Amino acid sequence: KTQQKIKELFGREEAEVHFFAGGTQANATILSSFLRPHQAVIALDTGHIYANEAGAVEGCGHKVIPCRSFPKSQGKIQAEMVLEVLKNHGSDHVVEPKALYISNSTELGTIYTKKELEDLHSICQKYQLIFYLDGARLGNALASEGNDVEWTDLLNYFDAIMFSATKNGALYGEVAIFKSPQKGFRRLMKQKGALMAKTFAIAMQLEVLLEDGLYMQLARHSNQMAQKLKKGLEKLQYDFYSDSLTNQLFPVFPVHIIKELKKEFAFLQMFSWGEEKEVCRLVTSWATQEREIESFLNTIAKLKG
Amino acid sequence: KTQQKIKELFGREEAEVHFFAGGTQANATILSSFLRPHQAVIALDTGHIYANEAGAVEGCGHKVIPCRSFPKSQGKIQAEMVLEVLKNHGSDHVVEPKALYISNSTELGTIYTKKELEDLHSICQKYQLIFYLDGARLGNALASEGNDVEWTDLLNYFDAIMFSATKNGALYGEVAIFKSPQKGFRRLMKQKGALMAKTFAIAMQLEVLLEDGLYMQLARHSNQMAQKLKKGLEKLQYDFYSDSLTNQLFPVFPVHIIKELKKEFAFLQMFSWGEEKEVCRLVTSWATQEREIESFLNTIAKLKG
Amino acid sequence: KTQQKIKELFGREEAEVHFFAGGTQANATILSSFLRPHQAVIALDTGHIYANEAGAVEGCGHKVIPCRSFPKSQGKIQAEMVLEVLKNHGSDHVVEPKALYISNSTELGTIYTKKELEDLHSICQKYQLIFYLDGARLGNALASEGNDVEWTDLLNYFDAIMFSATKNGALYGEVAIFKSPQKGFRRLMKQKGALMAKTFAIAMQLEVLLEDGLYMQLARHSNQMAQKLKKGLEKLQYDFYSDSLTNQLFPVFPVHIIKELKKEFAFLQMFSWGEEKEVCRLVTSWATQEREIESFLNTIAKLKG
Amino acid sequence: KTQQKIKELFGREEAEVHFFAGGTQANATILSSFLRPHQAVIALDTGHIYANEAGAVEGCGHKVIPCRSFPKSQGKIQAEMVLEVLKNHGSDHVVEPKALYISNSTELGTIYTKKELEDLHSICQKYQLIFYLDGARLGNALASEGNDVEWTDLLNYFDAIMFSATKNGALYGEVAIFKSPQKGFRRLMKQKGALMAKTFAIAMQLEVLLEDGLYMQLARHSNQMAQKLKKGLEKLQYDFYSDSLTNQLFPVFPVHIIKELKKEFAFLQMFSWGEEKEVCRLVTSWATQEREIESFLNTIAKLKG
Repeated sequence: KTQQKIKELFGREEAEVHFFAGGTQANATILSSFLRPHQAVIALDTGHIYANEAGAVEGCGHKVIPCRSFPKSQGKIQAEMVLEVLKNHGSDHVVEPKALYISNSTELGTIYTKKELEDLHSICQKYQLIFYLDGARLGNALASEGNDVEWTDLLNYFDAIMFSATKNGALYGEVAIFKSPQKGFRRLMKQKGALMAKTFAIAMQLEVLLEDGLYMQLARHSNQMAQKLKKGLEKLQYDFYSDSLTNQLFPVFPVHIIKELKKEFAFLQMFSWGEEKEVCRLVTSWATQEREIESFLNTIAKLKG
Repeated sequence: KTQQKIKELFGREEAEVHFFAGGTQANATILSSFLRPHQAVIALDTGHIYANEAGAVEGCGHKVIPCRSFPKSQGKIQAEMVLEVLKNHGSDHVVEPKALYISNSTELGTIYTKKELEDLHSICQKYQLIFYLDGARLGNALASEGNDVEWTDLLNYFDAIMFSATKNGALYGEVAIFKSPQKGFRRLMKQKGALMAKTFAIAMQLEVLLEDGLYMQLARHSNQMAQKLKKGLEKLQYDFYSDSLTNQLFPVFPVHIIKELKKEFAFLQMFSWGEEKEVCRLVTSWATQEREIESFLNTIAKLKG
Repeated sequence: KTQQKIKELFGREEAEVHFFAGGTQANATILSSFLRPHQAVIALDTGHIYANEAGAVEGCGHKVIPCRSFPKSQGKIQAEMVLEVLKNHGSDHVVEPKALYISNSTELGTIYTKKELEDLHSICQKYQLIFYLDGARLGNALASEGNDVEWTDLLNYFDAIMFSATKNGALYGEVAIFKSPQKGFRRLMKQKGALMAKTFAIAMQLEVLLEDGLYMQLARHSNQMAQKLKKGLEKLQYDFYSDSLTNQLFPVFPVHIIKELKKEFAFLQMFSWGEEKEVCRLVTSWATQEREIESFLNTIAKLKG
Repeated sequence: KTQQKIKELFGREEAEVHFFAGGTQANATILSSFLRPHQAVIALDTGHIYANEAGAVEGCGHKVIPCRSFPKSQGKIQAEMVLEVLKNHGSDHVVEPKALYISNSTELGTIYTKKELEDLHSICQKYQLIFYLDGARLGNALASEGNDVEWTDLLNYFDAIMFSATKNGALYGEVAIFKSPQKGFRRLMKQKGALMAKTFAIAMQLEVLLEDGLYMQLARHSNQMAQKLKKGLEKLQYDFYSDSLTNQLFPVFPVHIIKELKKEFAFLQMFSWGEEKEVCRLVTSWATQEREIESFLNTIAKLKG
C-alpha cells in the first residue's frame, strides 16, 4: 500500500505515515501532537507557520517564537539563533521552546545542506527539541542542483516531516511521516478535522507521483524553469533578494516595471527595497512551460528598453 | 461560478458560500466563527458533533451541551429539550448556550418536518441562538418520501448550513453556506487549516453534482436502496430502532445472525438491545446496487432459516 | 516551608505542591497538564467541572465525558460507568478518555469509601487513566462520620489532588498536589494566569489552617452544623435527595415553604421534584453558628404548621 | 460599593468593573473577550503579554504580533509601527490585527504622553482596533513627574484597562474596567478560572487603596525612591538603557560590579550591552525605604572605587 511505499522512500520501516488534505492543517496538527500547552515552537520570522498560516499554530494554543531572518539569514535558521532563543527562555514566565521548525526548500527558495541539518539536529538532541520539517517544497529542495541531502537521510534528523503532493502535481494531498509511531495521532487528526472520509483519493495520487520518480521529475522541471528565468533576469542585470536554487525567485524590480508586468503576469509584490523598487516573488511549477518563461523574459526586456 | 449556482439553489443572493475538504472541519470552523469562548452549542447526544467528531468543537474551546436522545426522540431534537437547556444555563457558573445544532437527515436516518424546523427556528429567534444545520446527509433528507422541506426554505431557518458532496458522490468536498456574509471567515478557515490551495477541484465536482439534479438523483437512489432493504427486513419481521426514511437503517438483529452476516457484509454494530440482540447500522450510498440489496436479504433470509 | 508541611500531611516526600487562587482554575490547569489535545476526562454529570465551571476544561480544548448521576448514583461515579465509557471510546472518531475526575465530598454531599477509591484506582491503573481528585470539600469528606479514608491514603490512589482553603476558612487559596513531580507545571500555571505574584499570602493562610488540626476542626464543625440541621429536618419528616454526611444537604421542600424560607435564608433551588416540590441545597460552613441552625429549624417548623 | 468608587475615579458611570486575582489572567481574559479566533493583538516585543506571560494570550488561541522595540522605541509603541502591521496583514493567509496592547508605565519604565495616546487612539478608531491598556504600573505612570494624563482621560482612549493593586500595596487584586458593558464577561471569567469565590477580599483592599489618594501616594513614593536612585547612579556616571521616570530603572553596569552587588541586592540582569557590561533592572516599590536606596548607592560607589 501507499504508506509502505512512502516508508521505503524514507528508508524507515518503523515510521508512521498519514495523509492530509492541506499543509497548514498538517503543520498545526503535527506540531500540536508533540506539544504541551505551555510549550512553543521556534521558527524564522519568514517561516510559513509564523508568517503565512493565519495563526494556525497559535490557534492551537502554542506560541511560535520568531527568529529574525533579516539580514543574517537567507530563509534558513541558524544554530546560533536557536541557542539564543533557548538562552532567553529559562524562566517560568516565558513559554518553553520544545520544537524547532524549518522548511526546505525555504520560503526564500534556498536549501539546507546536510551539514546545516546535522548541526541543527545536534542542538535538538542536546536540548530535547522536536525537530520538524515543513516540506511543502521538499521535492524542489532535493531536486535542486546544490542539494546534498537524500530522502533516506531525512528521518535521521527529523522527528516528523510533512511533504506536499498538492504543490507538486496533485489536486490535493500532503503526507505526514513520523520517525516513530505517534500514539493517538489519528484521533488528533479527527479532532482537527483532518481525517478524510475517502483517504484513498489522496493515496492514489501519491501512488502515481511516487512511481518511476515522477515526483522528483516534476520538482526538477519546476526548478529548471525557475533557474532559466533567473539566468535571464541576471543577464538583464536584476538583483535578487535571496540566492534561490529552487522554484521560487525573489528579484528586485523597479516599481514602474512591476506595474507593467502585472498586466500580463500574476506574481506577488513582497516589500519595498530601496528607492522605487520592490522585492517580488516569482514561482514556477510542474506545469510551467518554457515558452512562458521566455515570454516573461521578453516582456521585461522590452519594458527595460 | 459554482458559488453563484449554490446561492441560486438556496434562493438567496446575499448568502456567502465556502468550500471545505471535510465535514468535521466544516462543523467546527463554522460553529467557532459564531461563538465567543464561553459560549456553547446545544445538540442531541446522538449528534455527530457530540458523538463522532473526536471533540472537534470542544477542541475549539466550546462545550457541546448534550440533550438525551433516548427514549423520547428519534435522533431529532425537540423544542422542549432546547428550552430545558436554556432554563438550566442562566448562571455565570455555566456556559452560555448560543447555538443550536441539528442534522438532517439525522444520525438515526430520520428527517425533520417543516413544522419542526419552524418551531426550533422560533426558539432560536426568541433566545438569540444561532441555528446551524449539519447537512452531511441533507440530500437524503430532501430526497426522502416524507420530506416537505425545500432547498429554498432552508436559509429562512438556519444561519449557516453545511452540506456534503463527499457523502453523495464526490471524492471530497463540503459546502458551507451562511445566510448573510460572515466577516473574516476565510481567515478563520485558513487558521483552521481549511483553506484549500486548489479549491477549484472541489468546485468542479459540485458543478457536476448540481447540474441537471444529479445531486438529488444520487440521494434518491441511495434512499430507494435503503427503503427496499427496509421492506425486505420488515417482511422478515425484523424490528428497527428508528423509523428511517433515508439511507441509514437501524435494524435489530440477533447476535448469532450478525456474526454470520459480518462474514459477507460490512456494517456497524451500535449497541445491545434486549437479550442477545444488537442494533446495527446499515448504510446505502449513491453506488449501492439493487443486487447488493437482494444479496443481503437472501443471505439473512437463509440465516433466519 | 508550607509545601513541606503539606507533603507531610499527605505522607509523600516526592510529591509536588503548588498554590492557586481559585478552584476552577486549579482543576482546569491540573487536568490540562496531563492531557494531549484529543484526550478527555470522565466525570459524573453532577461533577463540578462538568456542571459548574462554565466550560473551563472544554475551554482548554478537552471534552468532559459525562456519566449520568441519576438515578443510579448519589454523586459518586461507579466503576461500571467508567468501564462503559471506555468501551464506547475505542474508535478514532471519538475522544480518548485519559483521566477520571471525582470530587470528595461530592457535589451531593456524599463521600467515597476506601473500597470505592481502590476500585476506581484499579481501573485507572489497568486503563492508564490519570486519577484526579477535586477536593474542594475534601476536609468535609475526611472529617465526616462515615469516612474511612486518611490523608496519607490519598496519593496511593490519585495522581493529583486539589484541596481548598477558600472553602474552609481562608480568604482565597487552593492547593494542588501531584503524586510525582509534574514537569513544567509552573510555566503552565503562568500561561493559565495562575501564578500569583505574592504566593506567600496563600501559604501563610495554609500555615495557620494546617497547624494543630485547625483545617479538620473547621471542616468537622461545618459537618456537625449540617448534620444537626439534617436531624431537625428529618424530625419534621422532610425527605432528602441524597444521603449527605457532610456540610451540603439536599432536602425536598414544598414550593410554598421555599417561598417563605427565601425571605429569611439564602439557599439554592436545584430542580423540581414531584408535584409542587423542589430539591434545595443547604450549605453550612466553618462560620455557621448553632443558633442559625436552630433559627432555620424553628422557621420551617412554624411554616409547616 | 467599590465598583462605583472605581467608576468615579475614571469618571465614567457606564463603565463595567471586574476584579481579578492576577494580572496575566486579567490581560488574557480581557483580550480574549474581544477577539474572534483568527484575530490577533499588536504589541511591542517588550510588551508584558508578548515577553513575560508564558504565552497566555497565545494559549487562548490568539497571536500576539510583535513590533520591534529596539532601537526606535523606549518601550513605547509608535503609531507608524501599528500602521506597518496593518499594512502587512491584509491577506487571508495572515491573522487579522484587532487589538492594540500598550502598557503604561511601560516595561522600560517610560510613560506615554497624552498626545501619544491620542494618536494611537485615532488609529484604533480608524481601523476598528480595540485599544487596551495594561496598567500593571498605571499608578506609577500617573504619579510620575513627566505625566500629563489623568485618570478621567483614560476611558476616552481605551476600550478596556487593567490596573494593579498587587503591584501597589495589596496582597492580590487587579481591576478590569471596560468603557461600556462587556456582555457575558463574568461567564468568560468563570471559564478562565478568574471568578473568585470571595471577591469582597479584593474589593476591601481597593477600598483602602482608593481612599484619600493612598494608591497614588504609594505610587509616588516608589517613583521617588527610584528617581533618587537614578540621580545617584547618574552622579556615578552610569548610563541607562531607557529614560525611566517611574519605579523601574535600567542602568548599564559592568559585569564585575553586578557580581558584587548581587551578594547584597536582588535584581535582574536583562541582557549584554557592549563589552563586559549588562543592562540591569532595578525596581522600587511602595515599601522601599530611603536608607535602602542609600545603602545601594554607597555599595556601588565603593565598588566603583
